[in-house]
Amino acid sequence: MSAFDDLLAFQRQTEALSSIAERLGWDQETVMPRGATEQRAEEMAAIEEVLHDRRTDPRLGEWLAAAEPRDEVETRIVELIGRDFTRASRVPARLASELAKTTSLAQGIWAEARANEAPEDFLPTLDQVLMLKREEAAALADGGDPYDALLEDYEPDTTATEIAQVFDAMRPRLVALREDVLGAEFQPQSLAGHFPQETQLRLARTCATAFGYDWTRGRMDMAVHPFSSGRWQDSRITTRVFETDPFNCIYSTIHEVGHSSYELGIDPDYAFTPLGRGVSMGVHESQSRIYENQMGRGRAFTGWLFNRMSDAFDGLNITDADAFYATVNRVTPGYIRTESDEVQYNLHIMLRFDLERDLISGKLDTSDLVEAWNARFLKDFGVAVDRPANGVLQDVHWSVGLFGYFPTYALGNVYAGCLNAAMREAVPDLDDALGQGDGGPGVEWLRENIQRHGGLKRPRRLIEEATGSPISPDPLLDYLEEKFARIYRL
Amino acid sequence: MSAFDDLLAFQRQTEALSSIAERLGWDQETVMPRGATEQRAEEMAAIEEVLHDRRTDPRLGEWLAAAEPRDEVETRIVELIGRDFTRASRVPARLASELAKTTSLAQGIWAEARANEAPEDFLPTLDQVLMLKREEAAALADGGDPYDALLEDYEPDTTATEIAQVFDAMRPRLVALREDVLGAEFQPQSLAGHFPQETQLRLARTCATAFGYDWTRGRMDMAVHPFSSGRWQDSRITTRVFETDPFNCIYSTIHEVGHSSYELGIDPDYAFTPLGRGVSMGVHESQSRIYENQMGRGRAFTGWLFNRMSDAFDGLNITDADAFYATVNRVTPGYIRTESDEVQYNLHIMLRFDLERDLISGKLDTSDLVEAWNARFLKDFGVAVDRPANGVLQDVHWSVGLFGYFPTYALGNVYAGCLNAAMREAVPDLDDALGQGDGGPGVEWLRENIQRHGGLKRPRRLIEEATGSPISPDPLLDYLEEKFARIYRL
Repeated sequence: MSAFDDLLAFQRQTEALSSIAERLGWDQETVMPRGATEQRAEEMAAIEEVLHDRRTDPRLGEWLAAAEPRDEVETRIVELIGRDFTRASRVPARLASELAKTTSLAQGIWAEARANEAPEDFLPTLDQVLMLKREEAAALADGGDPYDALLEDYEPDTTATEIAQVFDAMRPRLVALREDVLGAEFQPQSLAGHFPQETQLRLARTCATAFGYDWTRGRMDMAVHPFSSGRWQDSRITTRVFETDPFNCIYSTIHEVGHSSYELGIDPDYAFTPLGRGVSMGVHESQSRIYENQMGRGRAFTGWLFNRMSDAFDGLNITDADAFYATVNRVTPGYIRTESDEVQYNLHIMLRFDLERDLISGKLDTSDLVEAWNARFLKDFGVAVDRPANGVLQDVHWSVGLFGYFPTYALGNVYAGCLNAAMREAVPDLDDALGQGDGGPGVEWLRENIQRHGGLKRPRRLIEEATGSPISPDPLLDYLEEKFARIYRL
Repeated sequence: MSAFDDLLAFQRQTEALSSIAERLGWDQETVMPRGATEQRAEEMAAIEEVLHDRRTDPRLGEWLAAAEPRDEVETRIVELIGRDFTRASRVPARLASELAKTTSLAQGIWAEARANEAPEDFLPTLDQVLMLKREEAAALADGGDPYDALLEDYEPDTTATEIAQVFDAMRPRLVALREDVLGAEFQPQSLAGHFPQETQLRLARTCATAFGYDWTRGRMDMAVHPFSSGRWQDSRITTRVFETDPFNCIYSTIHEVGHSSYELGIDPDYAFTPLGRGVSMGVHESQSRIYENQMGRGRAFTGWLFNRMSDAFDGLNITDADAFYATVNRVTPGYIRTESDEVQYNLHIMLRFDLERDLISGKLDTSDLVEAWNARFLKDFGVAVDRPANGVLQDVHWSVGLFGYFPTYALGNVYAGCLNAAMREAVPDLDDALGQGDGGPGVEWLRENIQRHGGLKRPRRLIEEATGSPISPDPLLDYLEEKFARIYRL
């Protein structure tokens, strides 16, 4: 056995164990009895410790040094294992364990502070999290930029400076579009009625099938916050149901189908290697978003969906497909990121990105965070935050130490914009198929150009080779301006 | 930290990882997408290797040697960890891996041979399994009796000789009872009709609740072969449905509730130690059987069930509770162990026990197995086996190397007989409660006298302290003879 073979054999087991940990997480959020929380915490801690020991195993260093990769695939495998090994080795065990403990407590404190509308109950804890994250970032950065070091976990091979350039170019156009849309004379109707759970779930399954979800390698369950989980032969989706709002269930489902299809679409030869999963959170989000928005919320697919929903619910209060299309894409003022639409979503992200960069660098103190949040919100959204749960307390991310994660949501939208432009050119009959409830041609193009590559190509190269153009926010902004100008008759 | 503390900390993690492996098994049998089998096999192999490494970790030997337990609980923990460590260390890694590979293949070969009614396609493979099991047994026995060494995995602290004495005492009375019952003039009606799945599952849930199943620490799903899985805060049951036979679903459920309740009833202080699970397969089966048979198939509970089923299915072809009681306990000739009744079940076990002892000792050759099986079946059951799937090919156990497991089923019945006699004495209002669909008083007695102790007391001591008498097959036989004499008007 060569050093590379040893390395790969060891890694396969680590990947398998990591896949088990993810499956346990799925179990916890979907089917676990509610009385099992302490037991599950102990089980998760045990497998995480096994994983941590493997990720920092000194033999990895030896194998990595001696490995002689023979082609592009092997070279990339060595690179990715090496990256994780370096990162894992840089964080002292003491710090990793303190972070795990502190963020686990902080999540509960955040939830209670949000329920009580009391940011002052959470900010001291956020301060503790921040101090540990700064220490972690400095250790990971090894002399480089601390925020970039955190970002690498979610969107490797880019920098905050590059992202800021993209975001700064987007912001004025999005703020202007938001104002135009909300000030337009024409405003779409809202959907009204009672939409029974069973019917919604049946429709959601139909939509998942329309976008090619492989039920032999997946399943759908209910969860409070929808997510997808797993890869290769077993990638499951979850959804949720509000009986007054069927779009939540349907578009959550299509979104998660995008994530799962990415994982299921990866070349099976990469299974149980670091190439056998999505290459970054941004690219992942590009898949979920292009399924959900550019395809799922387009005029063609919503035309088909209008008929399906009218049948399933015995008529709707909206009676033609054009009006239905406008309803699906309705933009309303609101405070909450997760309830946001295509126009406003990225503004939410930019706000968080700028604030968290300043928090990590120390430029912004947690004692000034509420004020900074509210000022920025007023500036970009034109309204004042009415209460903390609608402002700084709305997201769980910072409490659990997820700094560097937020920008990947908007990057995903930017990538989806680039991919959509290229896909429309390459697949001229895309809308014909979507109008028949068939996402197949689009899915096929994405599988061929993005999904099957798994972790082989770095994110930028992957997107640029798929589209034939450098990454730019322009395709997304052009698409949004054109789409919403038409809907809102601007 | 003392050596005992180190030992316990290490063991807690091993128990947690082992609990994860069991949860994965549950996932595979209930909710896993059917296309995920290869992936799951790789995941299971990875966690099993982690577990094997931990069970043979040399530090265990050091800690065990240095541990100074301070009370009965700690002494027993050291004893049980030591037993497993000794066993795991005695089996060479090469043999363990060969056994895993061979039995995994053998299971498929057995299934195909059974489908084709072709024992000759399976027997050579069984021979390979047997050779490896004999080698394993010799290694485990370390000079002692090989079959006893295998038995220790399932029913520790007893010997095949002791079991044979019990079984030999039971056999003539069971053979005679079987003949009397099948020859009786009165024969119970059979239940006829179509019983929809959803209604059966609702009834099964009601029955599980009647026997105190804690739904906050469990759940019920469908599986091809019902089983229960997990412990402490998360012990799940499974059931199955045949729409012509609701008793299958209902009594499978009550049986599995018995298993799960045992695990859920253990003193929570023992969680993640070797005391935190049922002490032996026999004691486990005693719980499932006493729930299912002595309580669930008794006149009192079936009286309540008769009303529930009549309501749920809008009337039955059996119209009074006494006739219904006879129907529930109907004895019919048959070849299959798993479809057998209280009278014939143990005869099935004794046949397998005697044959497998001879297979392990080498007294019986696989080439003579079919003949030996058929001769014995004719002797005990009075009928000739009509085809191999109804004879030697009916059970999966031997193909997967489970030698020493079968006798625990009948031992469980013997223990249940002893416990039932003591419970009836201690809980005089048991039948009043069961007649109201309330298994509570019985469950409480079992929890106090058996379940809460987990692995603390050895099986014999546990049963004898609970009943105040030495273990004997007489209470079971007396109970059976009395029950079936009454039903069959002998």
